[in-house]
Amino acid sequence: MTDTNTTPQGETELAQLITEALGSDVHTEQLETLLETHSTADLTRAIAMLEEEQRGQLIDQVSAETAADLVEQLPIVQAIQLLEEAQPEQAAAVVDALPSDLQADLLSDLEKLDAEAILRHMQPEEADDARRLAEYDEYEAGGLMVTEFLRFPDHWTVHQLVRELEDNAEKYRDYQIQYAYVCGSQGELIGVLRLRDLLLGDRKRSLSQIMIPNPLAVPDHMGLDELHGFFQQHHFLGVPVVDDEKRLVGVLQRTDVDQAWIEQQDRSYLKSQGIVRGEEIRSMPLRERVGGRLSWLSINVFLNLMAATIISYFEPTLVEAIALTAFLPIISDMSGCSGNQAVAVSIRELMLGLAKPQDLLRVWLQEISVGCINGLSLGLLLGGIAWVWKGNAVLGFVVGIALCLNTMVAVSIGGLVPLILRRFGKDPAVGSGPLLTTVTDMCGFFLVLSIATWFLDYL
Amino acid sequence: MTDTNTTPQGETELAQLITEALGSDVHTEQLETLLETHSTADLTRAIAMLEEEQRGQLIDQVSAETAADLVEQLPIVQAIQLLEEAQPEQAAAVVDALPSDLQADLLSDLEKLDAEAILRHMQPEEADDARRLAEYDEYEAGGLMVTEFLRFPDHWTVHQLVRELEDNAEKYRDYQIQYAYVCGSQGELIGVLRLRDLLLGDRKRSLSQIMIPNPLAVPDHMGLDELHGFFQQHHFLGVPVVDDEKRLVGVLQRTDVDQAWIEQQDRSYLKSQGIVRGEEIRSMPLRERVGGRLSWLSINVFLNLMAATIISYFEPTLVEAIALTAFLPIISDMSGCSGNQAVAVSIRELMLGLAKPQDLLRVWLQEISVGCINGLSLGLLLGGIAWVWKGNAVLGFVVGIALCLNTMVAVSIGGLVPLILRRFGKDPAVGSGPLLTTVTDMCGFFLVLSIATWFLDYL
Repeated sequence: MTDTNTTPQGETELAQLITEALGSDVHTEQLETLLETHSTADLTRAIAMLEEEQRGQLIDQVSAETAADLVEQLPIVQAIQLLEEAQPEQAAAVVDALPSDLQADLLSDLEKLDAEAILRHMQPEEADDARRLAEYDEYEAGGLMVTEFLRFPDHWTVHQLVRELEDNAEKYRDYQIQYAYVCGSQGELIGVLRLRDLLLGDRKRSLSQIMIPNPLAVPDHMGLDELHGFFQQHHFLGVPVVDDEKRLVGVLQRTDVDQAWIEQQDRSYLKSQGIVRGEEIRSMPLRERVGGRLSWLSINVFLNLMAATIISYFEPTLVEAIALTAFLPIISDMSGCSGNQAVAVSIRELMLGLAKPQDLLRVWLQEISVGCINGLSLGLLLGGIAWVWKGNAVLGFVVGIALCLNTMVAVSIGGLVPLILRRFGKDPAVGSGPLLTTVTDMCGFFLVLSIATWFLDYL
Repeated sequence: MTDTNTTPQGETELAQLITEALGSDVHTEQLETLLETHSTADLTRAIAMLEEEQRGQLIDQVSAETAADLVEQLPIVQAIQLLEEAQPEQAAAVVDALPSDLQADLLSDLEKLDAEAILRHMQPEEADDARRLAEYDEYEAGGLMVTEFLRFPDHWTVHQLVRELEDNAEKYRDYQIQYAYVCGSQGELIGVLRLRDLLLGDRKRSLSQIMIPNPLAVPDHMGLDELHGFFQQHHFLGVPVVDDEKRLVGVLQRTDVDQAWIEQQDRSYLKSQGIVRGEEIRSMPLRERVGGRLSWLSINVFLNLMAATIISYFEPTLVEAIALTAFLPIISDMSGCSGNQAVAVSIRELMLGLAKPQDLLRVWLQEISVGCINGLSLGLLLGGIAWVWKGNAVLGFVVGIALCLNTMVAVSIGGLVPLILRRFGKDPAVGSGPLLTTVTDMCGFFLVLSIATWFLDYL
């Protein structure tokens, strides 16, 4: 396991070695050795250090098999960069050598033109398969399944099956074969075989005698949330995928559902932090990175301006009680923090299935009880500090009561907004933050400044 | 698959049915049927609706096997709640029936007293095993591995192995057996068998003849990041775990590493949003929930006060140019947004292994280029709006230039802080946000107010 313990210098050096090997195309062998002997971690980072055109050369200058092995290990966003920069012929050869679910995944994430160029250079049969799979949504059973699986007719015997495996060992080498599937004459799924059941007992039995009949299967259009739930409930390593006519079209593996789940959550996190398309790595072109961030920031400018109009409206009050200005950003930020905590818990409960969009009342009751305690505590804390700092008890009272009330507003909105967005089919990770801060800012500024206006004579 | 499509009403009804069945303890059978026939999704949500003592009764009033099946399906944070409320005898019987990795996971997450009470009631041998596993860190190989696996001496034949599997079918029923492991006389790992290789060929061969010798194994103290990297590089479904003396101590399955990875990321997300312990669901006791949130909020009050002192210092300027006050929260919020985008990308690059803590210069160069473009764009946008809104070009200039400069500061800090925190062994998800906003607030207020002071005559 020493390969995962290389020093930081190792990877910078590796990037240099790759660069040198790329410099002259007689060094294919040297390059292949570099790619095959280094750990995924080292390769990932070394490739992140390469220039754009070097990433393409890297794929072009090794065998398709070596390149496919590399592409399979890397984070998918990096794999896509490599394929985009490679020659279409070579990229096609690489994609040809990948398992079907990864093919579909890569082709649907590539720019349309790049994907078409690659598909044109693939073997026609593989390309048709890939096109068909790429038509499925990336995060439904059809888009996640593999089409490399064991399928045998029900009248075969165990002996025939074992013979088939022996005779075509090469073809089946990379298959994940925990299960084999038994189909009827129309391709309809009628049973499943566990490899261990094949191992035990008589080899003269027919498959229909030892198969588990009427196996569970998932429809090809089932979505990721339901698939994730399915594998939580059932301890299978894989499940057959069937089309509307109950024909077996692929096999969905637990590991692929887990990977997709991780990917979806990563994107969700980035979206919630204002990376609108849910994906950015720093080796992407500057134009894409700036665009992805700026679109979200520009919307935020206008949302912020809405809250600012409240402050402008109360300018006369502020001139009289200028000490208040220091507390405006505090109330805005603290309410945002309280609200974001509630947003995070709601998003997590939605994800775990502990809450559903219609649970508004229950969630609000559970949230407002926290909001009351935290509001009172924070209000007392900030009010006390304001009193001592500015030497004015009324100022402390105004600031404290405003923060207390606005904390209650913030947790209510924070708890409910994700549920409401989900009910309207929106991604709660994307919209919750901006919606929350806009409303809590407006409400917070209004509270502190209108209360201050009442008590202006004492400030 | 109809079970995953139940209506919302179904789950509220299910919670009611469970409550009714709990009311009288003669209805054990009815309760078991409810638990066995409903989907994980329905059960998760129905249980979230139960009262605290009902959650304990639910476990106490069904058989340990049914309860274990239930506990295995539920999110771990909910499973822990159930076990905490159950009678220790019954909780012990349930834990006895779980796979070893889940035992260790649950016991290390339970309160110390609850865990000890359960361990005392477990079968002594199982309890010893569980104690030993619970000593491992939750997120290292030893804490994630299962101890239920196939291990055979090297001198056995395939025939003997098949006989063993047939004779002890009951024992091996729940084992995940894609691989069997071959050990020497000291328990040291010397080979691995794939089930498919057992299936093919002659049953008289000894295991040492068909095993893959010198198999890859991971040390029991390897951490989650490295384990995740290992499974990215190698397409195994499981890998043997060895101790310092190379003795086989368990088997680590890919699915368990994936699950742990998902769990770790979920916690990281909650922590980044101010849920300090990384776990909150709304059915937890109010005291715990308030405490977890308030500790973080209180720290934020003081961080915010640091920034507020800058505003206080410039009060004379603000009195003269009161229109500026409306822009202070905008500059604070917008810089926070720009910085958080950079934080998110850094955390993601650290997670994917694309960046490492020592990449400060490279990351900064890639971040500042985005910061310059976005800073100029946002500065022009906000400056222009301020000019038009307040009818004062100089005010527009002051606000615009301050936002432009502070955006550059924010992306620099946002990009680098996660790397620096990671370098000092801190979790970047926890500290990055508060550190970022404090510095960018202070810097932003200082920029806009000091520039305004220079141009005060024109404001």
